[in-house]
Amino acid sequence: MVGGSVPVFDEIILSTARMNRVLSFHSVSGILVCQAGCVLEELSRYVEERDFIMPLDLGAKGSCHIGGNVATNAGGLRFLRYGSLHGTVLGLEVVLADGTVLDCLTSLRKDNTGYDLKQLFIGSEGTLGIITTVSILCPPKPRAVNVAFLGCPGFAEVLQTFSTCKGMLGEILSAFEFMDAVCMQLVGRHLHLASPVQESPFYVLIETSGSNAGHDAEKLGHFLEHALGSGLVTDGTMATDQRKVKMLWALRERITEALSRDGYVYKYDLSLPVERLYDIVTDLRARLGPHAKHVVGYGHLGDGNLHLNVTAEAFSPSLLAALEPHVYEWTAGQQGSVSAEHGVGFRKRDVLGYSKPPGALQLMQQLKALLDPKGILNPYKTLPSQA
Amino acid sequence: MVGGSVPVFDEIILSTARMNRVLSFHSVSGILVCQAGCVLEELSRYVEERDFIMPLDLGAKGSCHIGGNVATNAGGLRFLRYGSLHGTVLGLEVVLADGTVLDCLTSLRKDNTGYDLKQLFIGSEGTLGIITTVSILCPPKPRAVNVAFLGCPGFAEVLQTFSTCKGMLGEILSAFEFMDAVCMQLVGRHLHLASPVQESPFYVLIETSGSNAGHDAEKLGHFLEHALGSGLVTDGTMATDQRKVKMLWALRERITEALSRDGYVYKYDLSLPVERLYDIVTDLRARLGPHAKHVVGYGHLGDGNLHLNVTAEAFSPSLLAALEPHVYEWTAGQQGSVSAEHGVGFRKRDVLGYSKPPGALQLMQQLKALLDPKGILNPYKTLPSQA
Repeated sequence: MVGGSVPVFDEIILSTARMNRVLSFHSVSGILVCQAGCVLEELSRYVEERDFIMPLDLGAKGSCHIGGNVATNAGGLRFLRYGSLHGTVLGLEVVLADGTVLDCLTSLRKDNTGYDLKQLFIGSEGTLGIITTVSILCPPKPRAVNVAFLGCPGFAEVLQTFSTCKGMLGEILSAFEFMDAVCMQLVGRHLHLASPVQESPFYVLIETSGSNAGHDAEKLGHFLEHALGSGLVTDGTMATDQRKVKMLWALRERITEALSRDGYVYKYDLSLPVERLYDIVTDLRARLGPHAKHVVGYGHLGDGNLHLNVTAEAFSPSLLAALEPHVYEWTAGQQGSVSAEHGVGFRKRDVLGYSKPPGALQLMQQLKALLDPKGILNPYKTLPSQA
Repeated sequence: MVGGSVPVFDEIILSTARMNRVLSFHSVSGILVCQAGCVLEELSRYVEERDFIMPLDLGAKGSCHIGGNVATNAGGLRFLRYGSLHGTVLGLEVVLADGTVLDCLTSLRKDNTGYDLKQLFIGSEGTLGIITTVSILCPPKPRAVNVAFLGCPGFAEVLQTFSTCKGMLGEILSAFEFMDAVCMQLVGRHLHLASPVQESPFYVLIETSGSNAGHDAEKLGHFLEHALGSGLVTDGTMATDQRKVKMLWALRERITEALSRDGYVYKYDLSLPVERLYDIVTDLRARLGPHAKHVVGYGHLGDGNLHLNVTAEAFSPSLLAALEPHVYEWTAGQQGSVSAEHGVGFRKRDVLGYSKPPGALQLMQQLKALLDPKGILNPYKTLPSQA
């Protein structure tokens, strides 16, 4: 995405793949302590056998390491319910640039003894230290999971569905994802996945996770009745069995794969005020016209996070010039973020200024100089090149 | 508590009391942006009128400022459900030691553009910068709040009640507080509050907050039936109406007041593994014998946070010597925290080493030197004096 982990010049690659042991799990508090090289999906399996879940989940779960998840402050599919890693990571062990081991590895929910140093390393993409051990709070495993997949007649209705949903589903709402009609067409064309509902301008995937299946089904039923009755939603389907739940999630999770089969993909990961989330998609379609093959919008609407993707037959400098800096300027105009969850890495380091003022960039440089004076940790990444 | 905001030598007091305006509130996302001097209770009222709640609540709500809450990383009564301010604070504006204004004031749920600088200032007690504006995520206001107040025959049963509760109440559990028999006696003696249940060795207060009153009452009813039937709980009462809810909460919230009427109070705020939470109370009763008037334990059991208080007729150096460093050593032996939610301030700065290794303390000093080279921000606080 942003090339945060890809060597570009003279870097040395450091792998934590063999640091893959769970060190402890506490079955009352749900606190897991494990080494940085543990694969997210394996951790998920481990804690699920003990009636907990990991507080994050993402498409790459089968290969990504928890240390990398923390270093990049990964967002993903459970963010809406369980929040940011800045809240769920309780402790870290980090190797600093001079080789000393910084022990901030508490397994306590609350600890106000001095500055919360671990926060520095969450989302700093390995540029301030190398995370070697993680202590993280796992929520209890929900006993019932329901998924509804709905068609909406317009983006205004998508937004109203979200508000209604928050009110009627409350504490059991665990995901609110959306995709546009073009996403559905591409998933159908390239992956042969059929839409489970009538063709619509927008689709919404709602997930609930709760402790009482009957109560959850009743809440979701009332919500669907209201949404269909009031015209917010024109068609919908619901799933409780694992197989169908997975099938509905695949429509959303496999969009990236469908796009990569459509041609060269220009990818943007933006945070925007939710009301303006889709405007940039409409704007780009008009702006690019036939120069783009497809312009699509999808993502974590519940978190104000849009994945904006543009496909073309091949990479073209003129198409890139039509996209950038326009997309960044538009985002800055909305006080949005030019990187919501995918980080900065190599490719976005020179656009940080669209979302952060000079004073903030300067303090970032000072922290880098303090913690890594020789610039040996993930060089050429995260911070602007011209500083 | 720790004297974090009290001048001790030559300090200048800076008040943000007149910076008390709400700057914006977004009714779909629940994101509030306000100045640092807003009083927590006034903000609560403001967002509750708009069907949201503040993600934190504490006894001092009527007088404390949101800027101070963030600067001290306040915990409080909603921590169990809504988590730490490191997760719910979305942005800050901070005045640095050299007078420059650092703008990290985004109102986005997700933003991975560089280091998350605002985290540095959350919990640093004003020693790295002065928080002037806060952006914070407010959860939707629950439609139904229930409180149960229960008597438990022993601490083992308190723990089992907590585990059972997490399983059966799941996502609606919003508080799990406990107090011992001595707390109840003192609340009765000094404040004339009557216990609503039979005399028991321990008492538990459970709060649920949810979106459907019927569902919540059913979940709580099943739980209570199970807890009484299995002997985890020997007596209990429940409240749904505001007046009785407040009355039950008062028993827990007014313990501090009762203690202050009992004599001189030695106060400790510890994070401990939940199974060992009460051992230090029993240990101290044996250790201090008749030298202490009362030794009590209460607090946020669901967060592993014990408030350990010892009362005596008057301050005595010998009683202090019997308490310290014993309490800190005992806590360190459990890998606990010597300050769970009350911070460090002036009085705890020289005991940080019980919960943080020398490498961490050194990095804290380096951050202080970077951000406040002249040491003008809240001097003599938070960091050890002999560094």
